Amino acid sequence: MSTSRLIYLPLGGAGEIGMNCYVYGYGQPGEERLIVVDLGVTFPDMDGSPGVDLILPDIGWLKQNKARIEAVFITHAHEDHVGAVGHTYADLGAPIYARAFTANIARGKLSEYGIEPGAVQTCSAYPETVTAGPFTVSFLPISHSIPESSALVIDSPDGRVIHTGDFKLDTSPLVGEPWDPELWAEVSKGGVKALVCDSTNVFSHTPGRSEASVGPAVEKLVAEAKQMVVATTFASNVARVKTLAEAGERAGRSICLMGRAMRRMIEASVETGVLKGFPKVIGPEDASQIPRENLMLLVTGSQGERRAASAQLARGKYHGIEMQEGDLFLFSSKTIPGNERGVIRIINQFSEQGVDVVDDSSGEYHVSGHANRPDLVTMQEVVNPQIVVPMHGEHRHLREHVKLAGEKGRKGVLAVNGMMVSLSGNAPEVVDYIETGRTYLDGSVQIGALDGIVRDRIRMALNGHVTVTVILDEEDEPLGDPWCDIKGLPETGRSRAGLVEVLEADLGQFLGRAKAKTMRDDAKLEDELTRIVRQTSQNEIGKKPEVTVVVSRLT
Amino acid sequence: MSTSRLIYLPLGGAGEIGMNCYVYGYGQPGEERLIVVDLGVTFPDMDGSPGVDLILPDIGWLKQNKARIEAVFITHAHEDHVGAVGHTYADLGAPIYARAFTANIARGKLSEYGIEPGAVQTCSAYPETVTAGPFTVSFLPISHSIPESSALVIDSPDGRVIHTGDFKLDTSPLVGEPWDPELWAEVSKGGVKALVCDSTNVFSHTPGRSEASVGPAVEKLVAEAKQMVVATTFASNVARVKTLAEAGERAGRSICLMGRAMRRMIEASVETGVLKGFPKVIGPEDASQIPRENLMLLVTGSQGERRAASAQLARGKYHGIEMQEGDLFLFSSKTIPGNERGVIRIINQFSEQGVDVVDDSSGEYHVSGHANRPDLVTMQEVVNPQIVVPMHGEHRHLREHVKLAGEKGRKGVLAVNGMMVSLSGNAPEVVDYIETGRTYLDGSVQIGALDGIVRDRIRMALNGHVTVTVILDEEDEPLGDPWCDIKGLPETGRSRAGLVEVLEADLGQFLGRAKAKTMRDDAKLEDELTRIVRQTSQNEIGKKPEVTVVVSRLT
Repeated sequence: MSTSRLIYLPLGGAGEIGMNCYVYGYGQPGEERLIVVDLGVTFPDMDGSPGVDLILPDIGWLKQNKARIEAVFITHAHEDHVGAVGHTYADLGAPIYARAFTANIARGKLSEYGIEPGAVQTCSAYPETVTAGPFTVSFLPISHSIPESSALVIDSPDGRVIHTGDFKLDTSPLVGEPWDPELWAEVSKGGVKALVCDSTNVFSHTPGRSEASVGPAVEKLVAEAKQMVVATTFASNVARVKTLAEAGERAGRSICLMGRAMRRMIEASVETGVLKGFPKVIGPEDASQIPRENLMLLVTGSQGERRAASAQLARGKYHGIEMQEGDLFLFSSKTIPGNERGVIRIINQFSEQGVDVVDDSSGEYHVSGHANRPDLVTMQEVVNPQIVVPMHGEHRHLREHVKLAGEKGRKGVLAVNGMMVSLSGNAPEVVDYIETGRTYLDGSVQIGALDGIVRDRIRMALNGHVTVTVILDEEDEPLGDPWCDIKGLPETGRSRAGLVEVLEADLGQFLGRAKAKTMRDDAKLEDELTRIVRQTSQNEIGKKPEVTVVVSRLT
Repeated sequence: MSTSRLIYLPLGGAGEIGMNCYVYGYGQPGEERLIVVDLGVTFPDMDGSPGVDLILPDIGWLKQNKARIEAVFITHAHEDHVGAVGHTYADLGAPIYARAFTANIARGKLSEYGIEPGAVQTCSAYPETVTAGPFTVSFLPISHSIPESSALVIDSPDGRVIHTGDFKLDTSPLVGEPWDPELWAEVSKGGVKALVCDSTNVFSHTPGRSEASVGPAVEKLVAEAKQMVVATTFASNVARVKTLAEAGERAGRSICLMGRAMRRMIEASVETGVLKGFPKVIGPEDASQIPRENLMLLVTGSQGERRAASAQLARGKYHGIEMQEGDLFLFSSKTIPGNERGVIRIINQFSEQGVDVVDDSSGEYHVSGHANRPDLVTMQEVVNPQIVVPMHGEHRHLREHVKLAGEKGRKGVLAVNGMMVSLSGNAPEVVDYIETGRTYLDGSVQIGALDGIVRDRIRMALNGHVTVTVILDEEDEPLGDPWCDIKGLPETGRSRAGLVEVLEADLGQFLGRAKAKTMRDDAKLEDELTRIVRQTSQNEIGKKPEVTVVVSRLT
């Protein structure tokens, strides 16, 4: 037993915001029994992952060590923590544990893969525990921007780890359990080996604000609105959706939820009992019959997503409802970095419709779900851990969080995805580097981020594409002229002749003079033809396209 | 003369931030003599314009009316005001007027197209005037974030228009002329028909801050730095570059400018006399010899541009200099919406190097170059125009600016790109809609944004590409099997067989059963083969690729 160790290995979320996936292990080196905390996703973008549907953590290492996995624990139901359960379940083959609301959402995801609901086991909160190999794990309630968020209290023979999950210190979160420092102190009083802690807001220097602080401002805004009111927020922020709905109800408006994700989240909250007293809602078909000054829509799409309800309303009619001059649209949300263009696009579309848009620039209509810097200090003080392990953050956040721990006289360790850290000794120690990365769900296929597939797509987007077809007869002589097709390239260039014609002429000239040895060698011929296409295109249009050469030999 | 009119026609910048291009005309309808104000560019992005090098206004209407153009006036040397002079000069064939610094930059751009410096005429400031057909135009100094920014005082038989260009109300801009309300009141006292006014900061509710307010904070930061200091800002913000350099000099550091754009701007400022007393700078080769605690680099790339100095330093060595643990990197700039990902990328790279990054989140190290809402009110009060015409802004900015004018009891008109407005009557009147849009500089070719070329590239990025080759003999019978090549698609799909093999089998089966009529008809055959490729791919990999079909007929 003396050489057994407690390890921490982030596979996603450490060095990025999103795609959380952390592994803990205990046992002899290389034989540790493992538990997985969270299986999240992150979202593709046109810059780096065009055409990709979803980005999953690379769980290759877990697949290799499948037999060692005892269980999966999900801290809360945000996509970046639970989104990959369906795509990875078959590869991990371990039971999933979560609290009721999270389990409800996870089961929905598994059912898309035909996996039975029993794959997820519903747990109660601390002090109930789950035994998973050498670990005993408990869900410790903590406030966040979704119901039933939980930290995990992970007990091992080498001591207790508290993995915070995402959290804020909110004593009146409206929905879900408030931050309870006494409970946390109680849990921590026997000594905590490591606090593995959310880092996303480490650069926010003021204490976090309570969810309850949003209500009065929203209520005033809605009460003063003259025409229809539409509000958007993150669908999973059930407390916020409730705040918005209550503001509408108090202003005498009928409430209509629009967008699948929002209806799904509210349903799950009601089904699992975490949401009570939500105002009565009407369907879109009834909404279109109600005078607009008596109506409030709560819609998905706070990040400007093209297919969400907000973007559809911005483009025109959605479920029979259309925005009009004098309507109010409220973003009760912040724009996640990278989504600015999409959000600004719909704000301008609303502007063209004469809709007044209110966003969070005043700071009144949204609060963050994450602990700010002073809250992180409070958390460290309450838990008083031996080691602080920052997680869920880009490199800059993790580094700053380690510094913050240091300022308070605590040991911190900067571990990014793939770094295996032993927590057993007096100081954390990096004991291994695991190859890790990202897996793309591309259509219905999972591909590696570095497989070259997406790289080729990006190159076609940047450079366009030329297809060259050459037919050679039995003597390796060209049968007719080479043939070019272009896609994503201008039809004429510098010489004012058609690009295709110029390319075909240059290729034909080359083939007419090529040596027999070249003509016999497919690979060499393709290289040469590609080179000519790129060179001629560079001269003609100032671009070097991607090229597909098809050499057909009649035999 | 009675039916002559004064028109305003934005071709770029009204409905967007960037790509400024405005036309004024005076004369009989359809025969107005024209002047062009600014010829700016905007920048492509992967989302909407992958592979594009630069975005220019669509000047199709101006080309059609080339004979009516009297002159081009450039208000200042920012890319979104001067960037398109080189690309459009030949099409417009009109003299360009600008003040010395702007003219210097414009001539540099023209020289890339082999156009003589004489194409740009250097003007002095108000009260000097340029006569351009029915117009008399004068450059009225105004503060902004680049030297010699100027409004234009445009006199026509139907009255005086003041076109602000970009501006802020800064009484101590450090470089360039301060805001001079007395001069502006003097210019306006005879009555101003229309104030055509910058709108970008209409949603900023506090008065703008002076460039002079940045110095003390920067000086303190640099003085306290222990190791090398690197600072970035917009290269054209000569005042800021000077502030940064002076802070370095006072802290006993040698100053090194890195990045072509920054050196170019400082050179132009010195050559034209707008910048005096800039600290002595050293070259990169000398910089690498100096102890890092005595060095300060001023670099390009405040927006995270991949090829700029900041991004190169973030990736590794640049001109022999490398960042190290404990160095300081300062963003004395704001991140333009849409550029967040690039900026965050380099901040994280610096974090990995152990570099401390300071950005403008505290608000201390950057001030905007544009007039905030209260400043716009001041401008209206000083000029006291009959009409306010908001320009340079997205739809939401223009709409808000019209509202703001209305709140102050003034007439405003919301005119977006392509709307021709007559300013002659008592109220502004939309008299025509001109087809307008964007022109892409793509490699060395100008293409229309809606030509479908970039659309095809985006589709290849999203969906991948399949090339199908079929050879038919004299009887329209397939000679051998069809051939497929894939690019940007996974090699295997649902059936675990190679995607190419499955595609070729399905295509071969189709060809074996196709009717003679189909086999004779190229277009029909291509449609059918494309349909099969898309259908089979959808089944196999959940994606419908772009397809190029090449049917070769041996005759």
